[in-house]
Amino acid sequence: MACIVMKFGGTSVGNCELIKNVARHVKTEIDQGNKVVVVVSAMSGITDSLIDYCKQISPMPDICEYDAVIATGEQVTAGLLAIALQELNIPTRSWAGWQIPIKTDGIHGKARVESIITTELEQLMAIGYVSVVAGFQGISSDNRVTTLGRGGSDTSALAIAVAIKADRCDIYTDVDGIYTADPRIVFRARKLNKITYEEMLELASLGAKVLQTRSIEIAMKYLVRVQVLSSFVDSVGTLICNEDEIVEKELVSGVTYNRDEAKITLIGVADCPGVAASIFGPLNDANINVDMIVQNVSDDNIHADVTFTVSKSDLDFAIKVLNKKQKDLNYERLLSDSNVSKISIIGSGMRSHSGVALKMFKTLAEKSINIQVISTSEIKVSVLISEEYTELAIRALHSAYGLDI
Amino acid sequence: MACIVMKFGGTSVGNCELIKNVARHVKTEIDQGNKVVVVVSAMSGITDSLIDYCKQISPMPDICEYDAVIATGEQVTAGLLAIALQELNIPTRSWAGWQIPIKTDGIHGKARVESIITTELEQLMAIGYVSVVAGFQGISSDNRVTTLGRGGSDTSALAIAVAIKADRCDIYTDVDGIYTADPRIVFRARKLNKITYEEMLELASLGAKVLQTRSIEIAMKYLVRVQVLSSFVDSVGTLICNEDEIVEKELVSGVTYNRDEAKITLIGVADCPGVAASIFGPLNDANINVDMIVQNVSDDNIHADVTFTVSKSDLDFAIKVLNKKQKDLNYERLLSDSNVSKISIIGSGMRSHSGVALKMFKTLAEKSINIQVISTSEIKVSVLISEEYTELAIRALHSAYGLDI
Repeated sequence: MACIVMKFGGTSVGNCELIKNVARHVKTEIDQGNKVVVVVSAMSGITDSLIDYCKQISPMPDICEYDAVIATGEQVTAGLLAIALQELNIPTRSWAGWQIPIKTDGIHGKARVESIITTELEQLMAIGYVSVVAGFQGISSDNRVTTLGRGGSDTSALAIAVAIKADRCDIYTDVDGIYTADPRIVFRARKLNKITYEEMLELASLGAKVLQTRSIEIAMKYLVRVQVLSSFVDSVGTLICNEDEIVEKELVSGVTYNRDEAKITLIGVADCPGVAASIFGPLNDANINVDMIVQNVSDDNIHADVTFTVSKSDLDFAIKVLNKKQKDLNYERLLSDSNVSKISIIGSGMRSHSGVALKMFKTLAEKSINIQVISTSEIKVSVLISEEYTELAIRALHSAYGLDI
Repeated sequence: MACIVMKFGGTSVGNCELIKNVARHVKTEIDQGNKVVVVVSAMSGITDSLIDYCKQISPMPDICEYDAVIATGEQVTAGLLAIALQELNIPTRSWAGWQIPIKTDGIHGKARVESIITTELEQLMAIGYVSVVAGFQGISSDNRVTTLGRGGSDTSALAIAVAIKADRCDIYTDVDGIYTADPRIVFRARKLNKITYEEMLELASLGAKVLQTRSIEIAMKYLVRVQVLSSFVDSVGTLICNEDEIVEKELVSGVTYNRDEAKITLIGVADCPGVAASIFGPLNDANINVDMIVQNVSDDNIHADVTFTVSKSDLDFAIKVLNKKQKDLNYERLLSDSNVSKISIIGSGMRSHSGVALKMFKTLAEKSINIQVISTSEIKVSVLISEEYTELAIRALHSAYGLDI
């Protein structure tokens, strides 16, 4: 008998038939003698239309009220799934975030879970009840509804799994696991049976939208085994776990891409201490996230070129901010390019093997793909290339690292 | 400076533009120096579609979960109206029922308000804040969301008006007041400036859907002045108040009708003590509401005919229940007729004037309309007639009592 948190995303509960389908998944676990807590997202499309209502009324809606409005979507799903479970004669009840309560800080729109009172959840679990919890939400110390940010139901699920010491957290979604690459691009991509927390964290930060980054951090910190699987097809998913659970480590586990970034280059910036801070300070103040950064010294040794990437949606705003600061920054020219793509290889095996990055550069060179920016971490190498080479680069790398089926 | 509760129904908050319109109504009161608490319904159509979801999943959804699902509609409107008020620079916040809290009993689906903790509402009101309260809902002693039944937002509004000792409760709806008759039938109907609680209570029980019956009972008990007015047109509404506020009392204030009833006659029931109880007991056990009742003695003095009305939607079920009990009741035949209409005249002036009912019977006789059943109360006379005469009867009575414009 295991204690399992099952989390179902928006597409898995997209309509009443699908909610009944989810109830059957829960019943399967119960019939196997497991104890279950379920966490649900809003039905797909609901959160977006609630956001749209808010935006129709104000371009900048008050974030407390925004949270109060959009958190209702998950409450609806929780109630409906409870009804569906009762139809299958499973004793159950739904919980809104405030009822448990899931206590968060007061940062509306992206609150962090501080504590979860699990007394009632555990009492119900002990007598065979399935609790259905509305994901994505909590309650602040002044009794207002908070939300945990996009994909926050993953975080709800992991936080509850930690709080009730669950044996596993199953994340049901519309894909059946984590792949070595996007199967729509790489036809020979294959599903990974296991992946480490660190790799998954890199994947999520690189734009894979299967799991919210914060939820993986929680899983990693508390060593919760997470399984990503589909609510539509019956197959084994991908287990996210600690490195020592994975016997045969791949050198590289996956190749990913992100087309959502744009490149900015400042030509002829004064090459002196503090210049980086003077560039990135104003961008930070404007809430613009900067990702890859490189700095080249110019020929004259007095000036430098600084290149970095921001999200495409921030590009125009970033240029505006930098233009305003031209006098202080004293750069010659600003160049921007949004036709770029970031390609990354990820693998915890990199730590103990050299030459992994070199193989990436060679493979891209063989295909005549120019690398514009490079950034690396312990288990990841990312390069910025011209967008038109995206698919070519991914397929070449996928083959080069022996990932093809 | 007055303290006012403003309540806006579903059609008044039917979309984002209308919610902005409601915000302007609130601003008008604020600009006049009044203190305001707002109560809102769900956007029109929302509650029905939430109910539909529940019914798609189960024909008999658990009523606790049903409440948890459908109460979200009002929470959405409350948040959206708060955003709209902030756009007009009015300091505000929204409240779900559980946040205030509005404490109710545990009868889900039609809970009764037990108490309202107004400390925070009053503190905010004192510093000029407008509180926007989600109507229709409360919280039971075991922390679950309850709803107050169809039209329950009216009851929320009145209960809050009592709790904060408001000077007036304004009910904004899609009609601009209470009329002497349905203006779609009687073109010469006119809007009443004032109406007594008792009259309004009869009107509501007789099927006028402007206000939930329970809300009027609260208003009457605590003498809260209630104004019914339109959120779409700028005009004076109808004030519901105590009899002594109305100087010129009408003999009859209005003529109403209800086509939702059906008639059942049991022929040849044994005419002995306890027979009425033996008929209406089983109907009551089956949750079928019986309205008008008459009993005629038959020629033989041993048997009686009993006629009564039930709501049309209950007719088939009522017949089934009575057929099952035929042996015990020992009636000869059961007749039913759903082509009937109940016509009522209402007026608190009736108390002190005789001949009001007689005029009704005469007027109908003049038009050759046969009266099938009669029932009366202190301030009301109702008759059951053949449905096809509905409009004719209403117009004739409206003229006869001098109500035409």
